[in-house]
Amino acid sequence: MKKNKNIISRNEDFAKWYTSIIQEAKLIQYYDVKGFMIYQPYGWEIWERIKEILDKKLKETGSQNLCMPTLIPLSEFQKEKDHIEGFNPELFTITEIGNNKLSEKLAIRPTSEIAFCKYWQNSLSSYKDLPLKHNQWCNVFRAEKTTKPFLRNSEFHWQELHCVFETKEEAENYTLQILDIYSNLIANDLCIPNIKGIKTEGEKFAGAEKTYTIETIMQDNQALQSATSHFFGNNFTKTYDVTYQTKNNDFKNPFSTSHGLSTRIIGAIIMVHSDDNGLILPWKIAPIQICIVPLFISKNTNTIKKAKELYDILKNQYRVKIDDTDKGIGFMIAEQEIKGIPLTIILGPNDLENNNVTLYRRDTSEKEVISLNKLEEYINDFKNNYSNNLYNKAKKYLDNAIVDVNSLEELKDVIKNNKWARCYFDGSIEQEKEIKEQTGASTRCYSITPKNGTCIINKKETNKLTIFARAY
Amino acid sequence: MKKNKNIISRNEDFAKWYTSIIQEAKLIQYYDVKGFMIYQPYGWEIWERIKEILDKKLKETGSQNLCMPTLIPLSEFQKEKDHIEGFNPELFTITEIGNNKLSEKLAIRPTSEIAFCKYWQNSLSSYKDLPLKHNQWCNVFRAEKTTKPFLRNSEFHWQELHCVFETKEEAENYTLQILDIYSNLIANDLCIPNIKGIKTEGEKFAGAEKTYTIETIMQDNQALQSATSHFFGNNFTKTYDVTYQTKNNDFKNPFSTSHGLSTRIIGAIIMVHSDDNGLILPWKIAPIQICIVPLFISKNTNTIKKAKELYDILKNQYRVKIDDTDKGIGFMIAEQEIKGIPLTIILGPNDLENNNVTLYRRDTSEKEVISLNKLEEYINDFKNNYSNNLYNKAKKYLDNAIVDVNSLEELKDVIKNNKWARCYFDGSIEQEKEIKEQTGASTRCYSITPKNGTCIINKKETNKLTIFARAY
Repeated sequence: MKKNKNIISRNEDFAKWYTSIIQEAKLIQYYDVKGFMIYQPYGWEIWERIKEILDKKLKETGSQNLCMPTLIPLSEFQKEKDHIEGFNPELFTITEIGNNKLSEKLAIRPTSEIAFCKYWQNSLSSYKDLPLKHNQWCNVFRAEKTTKPFLRNSEFHWQELHCVFETKEEAENYTLQILDIYSNLIANDLCIPNIKGIKTEGEKFAGAEKTYTIETIMQDNQALQSATSHFFGNNFTKTYDVTYQTKNNDFKNPFSTSHGLSTRIIGAIIMVHSDDNGLILPWKIAPIQICIVPLFISKNTNTIKKAKELYDILKNQYRVKIDDTDKGIGFMIAEQEIKGIPLTIILGPNDLENNNVTLYRRDTSEKEVISLNKLEEYINDFKNNYSNNLYNKAKKYLDNAIVDVNSLEELKDVIKNNKWARCYFDGSIEQEKEIKEQTGASTRCYSITPKNGTCIINKKETNKLTIFARAY
Repeated sequence: MKKNKNIISRNEDFAKWYTSIIQEAKLIQYYDVKGFMIYQPYGWEIWERIKEILDKKLKETGSQNLCMPTLIPLSEFQKEKDHIEGFNPELFTITEIGNNKLSEKLAIRPTSEIAFCKYWQNSLSSYKDLPLKHNQWCNVFRAEKTTKPFLRNSEFHWQELHCVFETKEEAENYTLQILDIYSNLIANDLCIPNIKGIKTEGEKFAGAEKTYTIETIMQDNQALQSATSHFFGNNFTKTYDVTYQTKNNDFKNPFSTSHGLSTRIIGAIIMVHSDDNGLILPWKIAPIQICIVPLFISKNTNTIKKAKELYDILKNQYRVKIDDTDKGIGFMIAEQEIKGIPLTIILGPNDLENNNVTLYRRDTSEKEVISLNKLEEYINDFKNNYSNNLYNKAKKYLDNAIVDVNSLEELKDVIKNNKWARCYFDGSIEQEKEIKEQTGASTRCYSITPKNGTCIINKKETNKLTIFARAY
C-alpha cells in the first residue's frame, strides 16, 4: 500500500504524527492569531455529526436550546471568587469600541455560568418553573499559552447545558444522568472506551462543588479529559441572586449544574483510533462512510456506470461519495485512508464481469472480494462489526494501561513506564501537587461508587479509588 | 376572545406592539450589556428551523460549512480602506488578556471577509480548486447606538457564505443564484413577499462592487433589508493577496462574493404577519404547528385520553403539543395566539360524543367543527391554505404601498403619506442624502432587469427603477 509521506509515524514522534494527520486530512488550518484556528469543512462536519447525535439525546432529558450573549461584564465576573481566580489569566477583555474607551470592561465568555444566572434572575419565579434545563451550542474563549489543534485552542466550540433544580438530589442525579449520556455517546457512537469518575478538589472546575469527568486514553498512553458534568450546589445562584418562591412562599436559591462536551473530543477520535496511514473515523460520525472507486483501466466506462448505480442505491441510507479521479488504485486508496473513510468499494472490470466487487476496510486494511448481490447485506453487518472492532481494540488498550499500585514507589514506577496508576488516595491538594511534580502525573478522577481501601500516602481508610496519569 | 392585556395594539404604538409581542411570546430577554440580548428557547427555535431549511438549500449549490475564528487582527482590518471606514465605529476591540496588555489589538468580527481571505491564501493554489464555496453559521458583533430586538442587536447570528471564482461571470451569476434562494425562502417558507434589487452606491456594503438585496415591507410600511448578496470583484482578493495559478501558469486574483441572512429576519416575521393578539408564525418554521387542547369540563378524562391518541398520530408528521393546563378555554386559546401557533384542535366532551373536534386557526381567528375522521385530510390541506393566506395578505399590503412617482414633489407626498415611492433615479450619493434628510426615506434598491425612463432629479435617461422608503 502506498503511504502518504507527509504523515509521520506514531513511534517516531507522536505529537508530529497527530498534527500531520490533521493537516493531511484537512481538519484544521492555522490562522494569524495565536491559538485561533480554522475548522475546515471536513473537520467541521465531524463536529456537526457529533452535535446532531448529542443534541437529540440532551433534548430527550427535557433540555431546550437557547443562545446567550458572548460578552459578560468584567465586574460581574469578579463577584465569584473561585470562578474569577480560575479564569482570569485566560480572559480576553474588550476595552474599546472603534477607538473609544469603554467605561466598563467586557469579558468574552470562557464559559457561561454567569450569563445563565443573569437569565434565571429574570425568568425564574416559582417552584412551579423548576427544573429549568437550557443548552447552547457556541464558541468560548480561553487564552492558552501552549496551543494544540482541537485539544487546546484559545477559541473552541462546545455545548454547555446549564440547569437549576429545587432539590440537591435532583441536581446531583441529573449531573450523573448527563455524565452517562456523555459516556454512552463516547463509547457507542465514537467507539472510545472511557472511565467515569469524580475530580479531586485540586482538579475540579473553578466554582464547582463537585466535578464529574469522562477520562479516555490516547495511543501515547496520555489521558484526555473528554467531557465534564458539574454540580454547583447553590454557590452560583447565591452569588448571582437567583431565587424562586417555594410552596410555602419563602424564597430560596435553587441548586445549579452545568455540563459540557467540546471540539476537544475530535482530538480524542484522532489519537485513539488513527494509524500511520491517516485518520480512522467511527462509522456514526464519518462525513463519508463509503467511498466508491471505479477503476478506469483501458477507459472502461462500465465501471463508472456501475459506480453511479451503486451510489444511487447506497446514498439513501449512507453517506457515500464516488472517487472518479482515476489516479491509480494505490493512490486512491491512500486518499481514503488519510480521510479515515470506513469502507471503500473498488469496482474493477474483471470483478464486475463476475458480478463481484472488492471491499477495502479501513480499520484492518483487509481486502475482500464479494458478490454484488451480497453487498447491501455486507454493509449492514459491517457497520456494527467495524464499530465493535474499533471499540474493542481501544478497550484492550485502556485495560492494559491501568496498573493497580499500593505505594508511592509503585506509582512512580508505573508512571515512569508510561502507564496509568490506580490506587486508594485521599491526600491533600499539596500532596497531589508534589506527586505531579515528581512524576508528571495528575489525578484524573476517583470512583463514583465508593470502594474501600487504604490511602497510599497517609495510610488512612478511604473510599476514593483514584487514577493517576499523565494527561493532555 | 380574551386578549392579553400586555400586548399593545399596533395602531396605538407600533414600536411598543413589536416589543410587547417579543416579551409576551418569550422570544428575547434583555441583558446587562447594552445591545446584547438573550435568545430564549422559543425565539431560538424559530432561528434553528430557518437554519435547517436554508442550510440544505445552500449545500445544494455546492457550499460546504466550516468555522472561522471570531477574532481578526486590527491591523489586517485596516488594509481595506472602505471596509474599515464602514465598520470601524462599530468594532469591539480586545486589548487585554487577563490584566495584561496585548501587543496587537484584536477586532471581534463584524463580518468575515478578511478571515476567509486569510484561509484562501493558504488553501487555494490552482484554477482546478475553483470555485470555493464556504459557509458558516455564526455570531457577529457590531456596536449599535440604538438597538432593537432582532432588528439591531450588537451581537447577531447569521450565515455568511463566502466564495471565490475564476471568472467575473460565474461570480455574478452565483450572487444572483443565492439572491433567488433567499427570495424563495422568504416568500415560500416565511410567507413574506419581497422585492429583489440592487443597492445604490450610497447604500452598498463597505468594500463591495455591487450589493444585491431583498427588501420587505412591515405593517407600519417601513422597509426592512432582509438579506444581501455581494459581488466584490477582486477588491478583497487583491488587498489580501489571494491568488491562484491559471491554466497558463500565471497568477491571478479570483473574484469573490459573500451572502448573508441573519436573525433580523425574525423581526420581519413578527412585523409582517402578527396582530394585536400576538405572534402569527409561518407553518414551516413554527416551533409548534398544532396545539391540542382537551377540555376537562366536569373532570372529563375522555378528552385527555383522546388528546393523547391524537398527539401520538400527529407527532410523526407535525410539531405538536398538548395544552392540558385546564385554565379555561378562553385563556388557553389566548396562549396559543400569543405564541402564534397556526392550528389549535379543541377537544370538548360534546364534540367528541358526535365524533367531532373544533378547530381554531390563528391567521383568520375562524372556528370550525369537523369530523374526527376528516382531521388528517383537513390538516394536509390547511398547511398550504394557511401559508398561502399569510403570503397573499402580505402581498396585497406590499402592492398597495408602492406608488409610482414622476417628480421629487410627488415622491415627497408619497413618503409623507407613509407609502413607498418608485421612480427612475440616477442621482449622486449627495442627492440621495438630501432626499433622505428632506423625507426620511432612503433608496432601498433599483431594478435588476434594466428598465428605461427619466431620472426624476437630473432628467437624464436611466435604467434604474428605484424604490424610496423609510426603513429600519
